[in-house]
Amino acid sequence: VERPRPNLSFWFEFGSTYSYLAALTLEEAASAAGVQIEWRPFLLGPIFRAQGWDTSPFNLYPAKGRAMWRDMERQCKALGLPLVRPEPFPQNSLLAARVAVVGRQEGWVAAFSKAMFRTEFGTGLRLDDPATVALVLSQCGLDASRVLSLAATEAVKQALRAATDEALSLGVFGAPTYIAADGELFWGHDRQMQALGWARSGAAAD
Amino acid sequence: VERPRPNLSFWFEFGSTYSYLAALTLEEAASAAGVQIEWRPFLLGPIFRAQGWDTSPFNLYPAKGRAMWRDMERQCKALGLPLVRPEPFPQNSLLAARVAVVGRQEGWVAAFSKAMFRTEFGTGLRLDDPATVALVLSQCGLDASRVLSLAATEAVKQALRAATDEALSLGVFGAPTYIAADGELFWGHDRQMQALGWARSGAAAD
Repeated sequence: VERPRPNLSFWFEFGSTYSYLAALTLEEAASAAGVQIEWRPFLLGPIFRAQGWDTSPFNLYPAKGRAMWRDMERQCKALGLPLVRPEPFPQNSLLAARVAVVGRQEGWVAAFSKAMFRTEFGTGLRLDDPATVALVLSQCGLDASRVLSLAATEAVKQALRAATDEALSLGVFGAPTYIAADGELFWGHDRQMQALGWARSGAAAD
Repeated sequence: VERPRPNLSFWFEFGSTYSYLAALTLEEAASAAGVQIEWRPFLLGPIFRAQGWDTSPFNLYPAKGRAMWRDMERQCKALGLPLVRPEPFPQNSLLAARVAVVGRQEGWVAAFSKAMFRTEFGTGLRLDDPATVALVLSQCGLDASRVLSLAATEAVKQALRAATDEALSLGVFGAPTYIAADGELFWGHDRQMQALGWARSGAAAD
């Protein structure tokens, strides 16, 4: 009997800068660690609003925002990733998240999400423009109009709301967040290696 | 002519959990990197109040707080550091910060600060209790009553206020924060190695 690969859930938000870094580095690291990633798109907006914020904390606290953008410049340079600061920031991620929910159902969520992040943060094309989302779907070899129709169905809207509720119930308060099969939660791109290590050793211990 | 060692300012707050990790790991890492550390005690309270917060964000946002304490448990275990969660949290750090200002003037700020952090987060003794501060001073071989008298002088109070104003003007919004000689700012214990690398290569480039 083959031992199942340990699993790590990756909760991400398309408007989140550090979700970009996480999404574009995760698969290589997970493969090296022998961990399977479950891509979990959700919306941070409702979670932030529940905390009393009407925009990103990087906008609410300007010094924190300045430090974040400078840190992103340094990190992207070190990782060889492009960075074009989206204007405005953050952008409405609702459509992209609904499309990712369809991708989760159909098995292409990782490919779409990586391409979407790279387009948003690497080219400056607007995340909230349906033409951008359609372009990314086409780049992934998908029928954009079919997928966008599915993304507009009540079932998909409801699945995304349920995912966001699930994130909240699991203790998610920011993105990216990694959650191991035993519920252990790791917040932030900086914890990627520790989360993968936890997922792997948790499986090894059973 | 001897080349001066590159310098990195380490801005820390005694009430801050991640300042504890930073303070107890910094000197070994800085020594390996050939970087000299300038220990800069300041108060985060006035900076948080300027952001509209009357306590730590880890108290204001419970899910964030739970994740932080769990992360501290994992990090302390990995680093071999003790962790006793201070109650209440955060504790008033005014006296310890004033004493550290005296230590900066007299050359023992690093030794005192490390011992103070280890006592606060490793034993649960109260940071805001003058007896705790006196105990730590004695452990450092200092005359506690002399130092506590100095710490109560208007000159020291004013020096701490000036340090906090300076932190704010440099863009500090949390602790720990590392600032290189060229003004490059790195927020958080997780950026310790990058900050040291920046300080070192900045000096090598001149």
